[in-house]
Amino acid sequence: MTLRVGVIGTGMIGQDHVRRITEVLSGAEITAVTDVNADLARQVAAGLRHATAHAGGQDLIADERVDAVLVASWGPTHEEYVLASIAAGKPVFCEKPLATTQLACHNIVDAEVATGHRLVQVGFMRRYDGAYRALKRVIDSGTIGAPLMYYSGHRNPSVPAHYGADMAIEDTAIHDFDVARWLLGEEFTGIRVLAPKRNRHGSDLQDPLLMILETTSGVLVNVETSVNIRYGYDIRGEVVGEDGTAALADRGQVVLRRGGTVSGAVPEDWRQRFLGAYDRELQDWIDTVLAGREATGPGAWDGYAAQVVCDAGVQALRRGDRVAIELIEKPSIYA
Amino acid sequence: MTLRVGVIGTGMIGQDHVRRITEVLSGAEITAVTDVNADLARQVAAGLRHATAHAGGQDLIADERVDAVLVASWGPTHEEYVLASIAAGKPVFCEKPLATTQLACHNIVDAEVATGHRLVQVGFMRRYDGAYRALKRVIDSGTIGAPLMYYSGHRNPSVPAHYGADMAIEDTAIHDFDVARWLLGEEFTGIRVLAPKRNRHGSDLQDPLLMILETTSGVLVNVETSVNIRYGYDIRGEVVGEDGTAALADRGQVVLRRGGTVSGAVPEDWRQRFLGAYDRELQDWIDTVLAGREATGPGAWDGYAAQVVCDAGVQALRRGDRVAIELIEKPSIYA
Amino acid sequence: MTLRVGVIGTGMIGQDHVRRITEVLSGAEITAVTDVNADLARQVAAGLRHATAHAGGQDLIADERVDAVLVASWGPTHEEYVLASIAAGKPVFCEKPLATTQLACHNIVDAEVATGHRLVQVGFMRRYDGAYRALKRVIDSGTIGAPLMYYSGHRNPSVPAHYGADMAIEDTAIHDFDVARWLLGEEFTGIRVLAPKRNRHGSDLQDPLLMILETTSGVLVNVETSVNIRYGYDIRGEVVGEDGTAALADRGQVVLRRGGTVSGAVPEDWRQRFLGAYDRELQDWIDTVLAGREATGPGAWDGYAAQVVCDAGVQALRRGDRVAIELIEKPSIYA
Amino acid sequence: MTLRVGVIGTGMIGQDHVRRITEVLSGAEITAVTDVNADLARQVAAGLRHATAHAGGQDLIADERVDAVLVASWGPTHEEYVLASIAAGKPVFCEKPLATTQLACHNIVDAEVATGHRLVQVGFMRRYDGAYRALKRVIDSGTIGAPLMYYSGHRNPSVPAHYGADMAIEDTAIHDFDVARWLLGEEFTGIRVLAPKRNRHGSDLQDPLLMILETTSGVLVNVETSVNIRYGYDIRGEVVGEDGTAALADRGQVVLRRGGTVSGAVPEDWRQRFLGAYDRELQDWIDTVLAGREATGPGAWDGYAAQVVCDAGVQALRRGDRVAIELIEKPSIYA
Repeated sequence: MTLRVGVIGTGMIGQDHVRRITEVLSGAEITAVTDVNADLARQVAAGLRHATAHAGGQDLIADERVDAVLVASWGPTHEEYVLASIAAGKPVFCEKPLATTQLACHNIVDAEVATGHRLVQVGFMRRYDGAYRALKRVIDSGTIGAPLMYYSGHRNPSVPAHYGADMAIEDTAIHDFDVARWLLGEEFTGIRVLAPKRNRHGSDLQDPLLMILETTSGVLVNVETSVNIRYGYDIRGEVVGEDGTAALADRGQVVLRRGGTVSGAVPEDWRQRFLGAYDRELQDWIDTVLAGREATGPGAWDGYAAQVVCDAGVQALRRGDRVAIELIEKPSIYA
Repeated sequence: MTLRVGVIGTGMIGQDHVRRITEVLSGAEITAVTDVNADLARQVAAGLRHATAHAGGQDLIADERVDAVLVASWGPTHEEYVLASIAAGKPVFCEKPLATTQLACHNIVDAEVATGHRLVQVGFMRRYDGAYRALKRVIDSGTIGAPLMYYSGHRNPSVPAHYGADMAIEDTAIHDFDVARWLLGEEFTGIRVLAPKRNRHGSDLQDPLLMILETTSGVLVNVETSVNIRYGYDIRGEVVGEDGTAALADRGQVVLRRGGTVSGAVPEDWRQRFLGAYDRELQDWIDTVLAGREATGPGAWDGYAAQVVCDAGVQALRRGDRVAIELIEKPSIYA
Repeated sequence: MTLRVGVIGTGMIGQDHVRRITEVLSGAEITAVTDVNADLARQVAAGLRHATAHAGGQDLIADERVDAVLVASWGPTHEEYVLASIAAGKPVFCEKPLATTQLACHNIVDAEVATGHRLVQVGFMRRYDGAYRALKRVIDSGTIGAPLMYYSGHRNPSVPAHYGADMAIEDTAIHDFDVARWLLGEEFTGIRVLAPKRNRHGSDLQDPLLMILETTSGVLVNVETSVNIRYGYDIRGEVVGEDGTAALADRGQVVLRRGGTVSGAVPEDWRQRFLGAYDRELQDWIDTVLAGREATGPGAWDGYAAQVVCDAGVQALRRGDRVAIELIEKPSIYA
Repeated sequence: MTLRVGVIGTGMIGQDHVRRITEVLSGAEITAVTDVNADLARQVAAGLRHATAHAGGQDLIADERVDAVLVASWGPTHEEYVLASIAAGKPVFCEKPLATTQLACHNIVDAEVATGHRLVQVGFMRRYDGAYRALKRVIDSGTIGAPLMYYSGHRNPSVPAHYGADMAIEDTAIHDFDVARWLLGEEFTGIRVLAPKRNRHGSDLQDPLLMILETTSGVLVNVETSVNIRYGYDIRGEVVGEDGTAALADRGQVVLRRGGTVSGAVPEDWRQRFLGAYDRELQDWIDTVLAGREATGPGAWDGYAAQVVCDAGVQALRRGDRVAIELIEKPSIYA
């Protein structure tokens, strides 16, 4: 059996998923695409063997040749397409964010809960990264005792000109928020956002940011975003436990001794760092759906929780002090 | 288009390739299998969607539903199946060794050369490992100057009881020989094999071994095999150049601070270390064959050259001094 | 010429300095000692060649066979002895803290300023550690651009039973405060102290603590004290700059591959980590005084500034929010 | 008590020892110096407080104001001065080599054995390096099982023009020979010297060299000398045992993330790498002599054994094959 996937949104990310499903992964094929730019959708469809270009997302979701839906369109449209997929009873993989407002996320959670089953997976791909998974295994093994603090560093060499103040929280740190929730197995209860001296490369942008969050059991989570740091794309993480610490290792594959130094390479960008994780998250989704199992990857609840933290973070950046984080009660299907 | 692959030999390695092609990779399906154990072949075929179980390798190669052949049978049978594939004009992927004697390898080279095209790929999967590829890029970039020495360490936690004296050379070090030839872009001209004090875990086995090889330009290559070293599966490599050195990095994904130490994990076995390389070599073969291009991976010439080095190594181990390595002239299709 | 040193306080730390001057360093000898425990002082004097045991610190300072004074007595007595040394015009090395209140520190600064010369050195030995000095050189070289954040981790395997809440700030983090001021070349303007989930090994103690300080130019300094973390004595530091970061390296001298891991040792205690720094700070003091130069090591101003930060930190821990740090204007002799 | 030391040879190394004893170490003073260049000796004496410049080494050894002798003169003169010191019953510290011929070394051993006591220490300072001592502790602890191989890498950025073929063995690798004997606690029984492709920076010099030695129990020792490798002064060592390996760690004190790499510094020269070891070896010698104990550092036997290995090495380089190494029976005072 081959899973027939319809892709909503064939921009850069959507096309990358199309390539991945067609050329890299096993068990799925693209049978339908659509995009706000109809020409683009037709072009992408033409490059595939059995794909139809639909006029819109609703048509695509209704297509009986579509078993499962992949949403890679503009954030504000996510709510509509995810809800429609749920209504059609079709599994849906939605790129992050799940939706752009708490209310929209809440609506998705309600709709999914009403079906009694998990149908939604959200594109928090770090959970499929080998190093993060190894880190989680160490934490869960108890070898460092209970976690007490977690340092999460998110460093980018540079960002495009349109990258604004809130994006460090909503686009960048959202990954750190999700992975911290997953590693620690806890929700957040509060956030502070501190603004250090600005990096000259960021001109008017407030960069870096230092965010300090608390979890239900009192773990402090420290998120640094440095998005103009030039030296590379460097994702750092260290859990401080009662008996020791566990951290993501540096990733150089070669040790070079040259010109007075011993060195290893830093990834240049997210592709180098997380390409494998993107492959694995989608293969896992395909395998899960094909097997008729419920998704175990990040779901609607995770998308909702991340959105609430982002909203609190943006408020905290503006207000300058601690903002409380409050979630609705967690529905049992997400237990 | 989907590449229809026939698999000769459905033992452990063959089954692993079947799983890989069916569940992991893109672009190929298994349409035929065969094995010296006919029941096993039928069982494997039954678990697949469109696969026929053939009585023998020759039938499988002749099957018109087979576009390309994968040979994973017992070493002494490789020559026959590879020659038959070449005769049938079908691309063939052959697990290492290409064949078990120099003469057999030579025959394959002759047959392939007679077709004027490269049809054969040999399973030297290290060339598809990310770290080795990064190491080769550093060497080729000239940043460490011309290579003068290469240290290759091949360490296994343990080996099965039937692992005999020559296997350290023919089964283990053969990978080091191939990867050294590829990294340096040179052939070997001589080999010495020295036997240090024995590891008590190996009982009667002469383990470790230290092999010292020379290349045409005079680079010294130092291969250590330690196959009972308990601590893990550790593949080491360092090229000493005129201006610096480049080495394979340690591979731990997590840095653990616990009980007085800062540590990272060593791979437990070849699966952990090279699983990705096995995936990539076969995906590359599928993509290349599907595209109608000649193989660029390790070929019949590489299988032949490795075999000549192994033969000289075994002789050197017995004789205790240097044994010269002589190859036939390299046919132009391998340039 | 040999510098004749009088030591006030011959408890553990005082005796260690006596040993250091007598058996390790060059250019000084102990000519006088005193202690609140007169028997102990006589005992220590008896083990030396030319040392007199004095009844009290004032007698020792007045002794004309004493060229320079080393104060290693109980903290609350520091003010009196340092002031007396200044009054006598004798160079004085005072173990940290300079004094136990802001007022006392301020008095010492005033007295020293009145002489127009620097006579006081404070025992902030980290400034003499090779790794911190290398870190400072990197920062000062500009290679990572302007510093924007600094992470300082102070981890102890365990603390004695009498270690109370404020000691994490006044005894432990005081070193991080001083070294951050020195690395960055700036004063602090505010501090927050956050209390994460408690380490079970610390029973009632609030451990760890996370302190967040700001400097005049806006650099954020993050000090973690984890004083029951079992795994070792681990001093961490990373400066995040505009173009890169620089961090203290791990210190293992041997890389051990054993039992599935690649590991290095963590220091067991401060002796292993900072013994060399203690030797160098005192040798530097001896050389400086012998040469008739003014001290360039940490001085009375640094002792004062550190005390103000500690007081603010203790207040911040109690109040739960940010406390401003205000210093008097810096006298020109400390420029 | 202060040890009164006479220094024979006040060239670069001799002056460095004079500075060390005078300005860094504790417990000794220079009371006499001599040099083949009498003006230089007078100049050095003039810079010290109580030192006499003698016309020759024999006068200096005879001086009753000299308790112990330090020989830092030209190699071929070592034998005479060490023998005279032994004859005078004075402890003597001799820079390496102990003497320049096997016969001369043998004579010294005989003379010392005749006294029944150890009077001679040889300047193999690596035994006082913290990293090598940590490596020896790991080996001796048995944690990696019995040693089976040892890789010793001796890399220099460059050498002076007069550095000739044999110096890589007699001046450079002699340190590797000594430290291997000490780490393994065994003597050598044979040596091969292989010559790889030449480094272009060394013009006519055969560089690098790869030496392979065997010990009495069959451990293989692999010594690489690369003396024009530009990237730094890098001393490498890895012991391969039955259960794991132990290696000297890289020595960077700071981890720099900059320009696409994570890096640490390599020492620039032997001063940066071994300065502390020079200080410790001489302090240990002073302390030992002052305490009236016999030397436990490297002695005449070690100087003799190293010389025999060097001679065999030079012969092996010329002959191109294995040369046996034979020592006289080890006198009991060296047990």
